[in-house]
Amino acid sequence: MNTPIRKGKVYLMGAGPGNPELLTLQAHQILRSAEVVLHDHLVSQQVLDLLPAWTQVRNVGKRCGHEGISQDQIHALLIAAAREGKQVVRLKGGDPLLFGRVGEEMEALARAGIEFEVIPGVTSAMGAAAAAKIPLTDRRYASKLIFLSHHTAGNVSPEWNDVALKDATYVVYMPGKNYGEIAAKLLEGGLDIATPCVIVANATQAD
Amino acid sequence: MNTPIRKGKVYLMGAGPGNPELLTLQAHQILRSAEVVLHDHLVSQQVLDLLPAWTQVRNVGKRCGHEGISQDQIHALLIAAAREGKQVVRLKGGDPLLFGRVGEEMEALARAGIEFEVIPGVTSAMGAAAAAKIPLTDRRYASKLIFLSHHTAGNVSPEWNDVALKDATYVVYMPGKNYGEIAAKLLEGGLDIATPCVIVANATQAD
Repeated sequence: MNTPIRKGKVYLMGAGPGNPELLTLQAHQILRSAEVVLHDHLVSQQVLDLLPAWTQVRNVGKRCGHEGISQDQIHALLIAAAREGKQVVRLKGGDPLLFGRVGEEMEALARAGIEFEVIPGVTSAMGAAAAAKIPLTDRRYASKLIFLSHHTAGNVSPEWNDVALKDATYVVYMPGKNYGEIAAKLLEGGLDIATPCVIVANATQAD
Repeated sequence: MNTPIRKGKVYLMGAGPGNPELLTLQAHQILRSAEVVLHDHLVSQQVLDLLPAWTQVRNVGKRCGHEGISQDQIHALLIAAAREGKQVVRLKGGDPLLFGRVGEEMEALARAGIEFEVIPGVTSAMGAAAAAKIPLTDRRYASKLIFLSHHTAGNVSPEWNDVALKDATYVVYMPGKNYGEIAAKLLEGGLDIATPCVIVANATQAD
């Protein structure tokens, strides 16, 4: 019988907004010794370039509704690699606990008795705001910050009927390409048509 | 006449939620060569311990309404140090562009013609959620994330009358010690009394 000497572990990790310099020291250190990395398509190539040559790397990302690999298959891959005694990283863009399926992954790992840890990351809103030098809240204009996602992990666009709050900044994640549709939805939700707006893509990523 | 050879620069930087391992690689590298650091009281001692012995370090934090140093004085200190050709860090807990006065600091620096850069950080909500292993959004329960601050930088408690949104997770920053008052305010704002709640303090900080 093959019993692994080392205990496997899964790190549910945020890769930050793109620039590898925005990885945390903790994430960087774990990535440098990761044996298996399953990553989303939002993780930048520059971050993946930091992985050692011997790391098994697999893109398990879902892109624009195209399901390459099911969520259950991702759970099975994480559990199988950890049971082989491997150090496994489930690598997500930004922060892992925002707008993803890490809740389901944590439940699957817990049910299977696999040890896991969550490694937070710089979320894209903060990376984009820093790059654009725009405060997310400024006490003179906004006292609340609201993160919305145009596409949830289940690809169901959530309702924004009640979304207009006083003194709030809004950040829309995963907007897709139809910004007009998002603007219309926010206006239907009660937002003032004079609300200023910035569109940021690929923030923090080097040229 | 004394003209500095090097050009001074100010980094408006997030120190992350407390654990120095959650600094970004970028923040860590800049801190290791910072000549002047002006920090808030929310920056952990473990992060300050990373600073070289020769760095001038000053706590300019405001704590519980007690104003040690005015915002204008902070601007003057940043500008004076940069004009001496120094590498200056304005160090904040979490992310610099959320619930602080960095908007005003950016304006003051721009008016004075001082070069500055914003270095994003892991915000405490992400650090706390990772430590507690609780998703900030889980597509089965929440599609929105709302950051509120019980005390704004101006110490004016913002209105939450309209705050109850469907499918939302709420994070309350700077809650102070009177959690009952916050609960009452959220309930007045329309939140369901059965909404589950977690209180996290000093998340991610090592023992």
